Amino acid sequence: MTSANPVTLPLSGFKPQHFQLSVAGKVATVTLNRPEKKNPLTFESYRELTDFFLAAQKEEAVKAIVVTGAGGNFSSGGDVFEIIGPLVAMDTKDLLKFTRMTGELVKTMRACPQPIVAAIDGICAGAGAIIAMASDLRLGTAETKIAFLFNRVGLAGCDMGACAMLPRIIGQGRAAELLYTGRVLKGEEAERWGFLNRLIARETVLAEAQALAAELADGPTFANAMTKRMLEMEWAMSVESAIEAEAVAQALCMQTEDFSRAYHAFAEKRKPVFEGN
Amino acid sequence: MTSANPVTLPLSGFKPQHFQLSVAGKVATVTLNRPEKKNPLTFESYRELTDFFLAAQKEEAVKAIVVTGAGGNFSSGGDVFEIIGPLVAMDTKDLLKFTRMTGELVKTMRACPQPIVAAIDGICAGAGAIIAMASDLRLGTAETKIAFLFNRVGLAGCDMGACAMLPRIIGQGRAAELLYTGRVLKGEEAERWGFLNRLIARETVLAEAQALAAELADGPTFANAMTKRMLEMEWAMSVESAIEAEAVAQALCMQTEDFSRAYHAFAEKRKPVFEGN
Amino acid sequence: MTSANPVTLPLSGFKPQHFQLSVAGKVATVTLNRPEKKNPLTFESYRELTDFFLAAQKEEAVKAIVVTGAGGNFSSGGDVFEIIGPLVAMDTKDLLKFTRMTGELVKTMRACPQPIVAAIDGICAGAGAIIAMASDLRLGTAETKIAFLFNRVGLAGCDMGACAMLPRIIGQGRAAELLYTGRVLKGEEAERWGFLNRLIARETVLAEAQALAAELADGPTFANAMTKRMLEMEWAMSVESAIEAEAVAQALCMQTEDFSRAYHAFAEKRKPVFEGN
Repeated sequence: MTSANPVTLPLSGFKPQHFQLSVAGKVATVTLNRPEKKNPLTFESYRELTDFFLAAQKEEAVKAIVVTGAGGNFSSGGDVFEIIGPLVAMDTKDLLKFTRMTGELVKTMRACPQPIVAAIDGICAGAGAIIAMASDLRLGTAETKIAFLFNRVGLAGCDMGACAMLPRIIGQGRAAELLYTGRVLKGEEAERWGFLNRLIARETVLAEAQALAAELADGPTFANAMTKRMLEMEWAMSVESAIEAEAVAQALCMQTEDFSRAYHAFAEKRKPVFEGN
Repeated sequence: MTSANPVTLPLSGFKPQHFQLSVAGKVATVTLNRPEKKNPLTFESYRELTDFFLAAQKEEAVKAIVVTGAGGNFSSGGDVFEIIGPLVAMDTKDLLKFTRMTGELVKTMRACPQPIVAAIDGICAGAGAIIAMASDLRLGTAETKIAFLFNRVGLAGCDMGACAMLPRIIGQGRAAELLYTGRVLKGEEAERWGFLNRLIARETVLAEAQALAAELADGPTFANAMTKRMLEMEWAMSVESAIEAEAVAQALCMQTEDFSRAYHAFAEKRKPVFEGN
Repeated sequence: MTSANPVTLPLSGFKPQHFQLSVAGKVATVTLNRPEKKNPLTFESYRELTDFFLAAQKEEAVKAIVVTGAGGNFSSGGDVFEIIGPLVAMDTKDLLKFTRMTGELVKTMRACPQPIVAAIDGICAGAGAIIAMASDLRLGTAETKIAFLFNRVGLAGCDMGACAMLPRIIGQGRAAELLYTGRVLKGEEAERWGFLNRLIARETVLAEAQALAAELADGPTFANAMTKRMLEMEWAMSVESAIEAEAVAQALCMQTEDFSRAYHAFAEKRKPVFEGN
């Protein structure tokens, strides 16, 4: 997490044009904010979100991130006129540049040491559903409507890593159904399938996500970042290799002050105060 | 899907001896059809099913496939007297030839560009349960009885890819239980676990599967075939590699006419008509 | 399972100091037995459990293993004063030695040809939850409380293979939640998520686990061991490779006497008696 010459970016000074950013304590909240169009993604917002998560990777002051949408919806995904129209006219080289750029958003989210909590209400479609899926935890509402709409616009379900991530979250059979049909998965069923971690009332879903993020931010964040990295790396690893990788990673975590703090707090019957080092 | 010298086989002219085949519109229906024995598999039917799916891989006119069984059962699996008896007397070389042949059936089903929808009622056991699992989507009934019977006949649960496929559909703990015990998984529990996508009344499960297949066949079939391929390939891929593989695959799909058709239909407030190219 | 010079260890003569061991018929039962502290793990018990499972790998007379805890709890995990205290003071080399030793316990459990059934009541926390997860089947009670407590003591969730095993049992989203928060997963929810195979009354959970183990021990144990090995190996294998690996493994199982016994019993309308060869 720290390097020889740590570059601490003033993330709170990051001035996004295409989404809203706020930082409270150790938690940054990203709000997709074009509610009149249900918060679609555009070329510019993809790029800017990726830049944000790249910056967040080096930001020591932010320990957890919440992603949400304004006005009762999460995101409607790639905008038909602002994204799909131009893509239809694009050549091979620029198309691959675009699909790599969208994939890079997922990669930067997964590479962030911070856990990302998505607060999902209303429409969560297309690339919006991918952003939800690239988050670590997902809180939703009964009104959440998740849809992998790619095949509805003539495209494949394999977008931004969906065919790798979705089966690992909800299983291969259910993932296939959502990706082939583009059908809506509503909140209650999404919780039952393990896509959503919890259902919350619309009025409080963002506050609950921020509270959960704050709780994680107060935890042993060096260790939690290791958990995130390993959950990622071990998807395509044998159990034997995973056990060895974890032995090394955990031995490293056992040398943090947080581990020592926890022990001493426990011995003195106090609640530990973690500092992420 | 198309090659320089496309070989279009007259699949509707395929005359199977060991199952029933019908083609309606863009949907082929395979019916295991020996209802008096609950549609068992034999050496000949394994081979013929594999030949069918091999032919289907090159058949441009068929865009989705339904697999079902006649007479209220899906399949009882490998026949005791017609398969197990001869196997008990076989030498090493011929045994491996047999297990490779059964595995090849799964490989050809997975390599088919067409999505395969299984309509499962009644008994779905042994190799029958594997065929269900090698399908992409599974519709069942409350009377569906799934059983991985291999250990009941002295064999391992690792048959035709079961130990790779089942955990990815229902999770490792539940897969282990079914494979170690051979116990029956009934329709309702199978839906709860994600093995079945949906429960349907017995009277209509085949019609519903055919309707779902027809809906997929009317979709962007080039893109859906890519979804199928990627869902398959990404089982043993890191997220990073998966994202890059999908960037390339989706850039290819963005050059299909179907993508353009969808955009123009949307802009003109029409329902898109996909042609699979 | 047998080698040129089979070493049959008198497992029933294994005299553990740090847990209770009993053998009844073909089933060995390991009982973590320090109920006044909810059966914590210590340096010595980790080592001794690993030695036990290493010995069990070569023990022909034991065909299934049950793991449980005394006094209404499974295990509270690594003891705070007997394990965490010393670790806080340890140097890098010894820390890695420790994490490798704990990982080795999981490896030896997974490498055992015997299926392992965990009977889980009450607290099942930290390394205790990992031991449950490294078992093949898990029976619990409504009072079962599973918690991956690592982050509560300043550590990462990647302990003893948890980031590889837990997502494959309950899915990536739910696994992330448990590992990041350390929150308690109660019996009913654990069954719903597929962590527990079944909920049983407290009074009978051990007896049911032993009955299930006895049933597996009376099955085709050579074949069941192959199922276990393949379920393990195929986590990081492509479907194509998995199908080939299973073709070879199943052809081997078809040459066992158990396969022949099953066929002849079936032909004579008898229940087969398996002998594991």
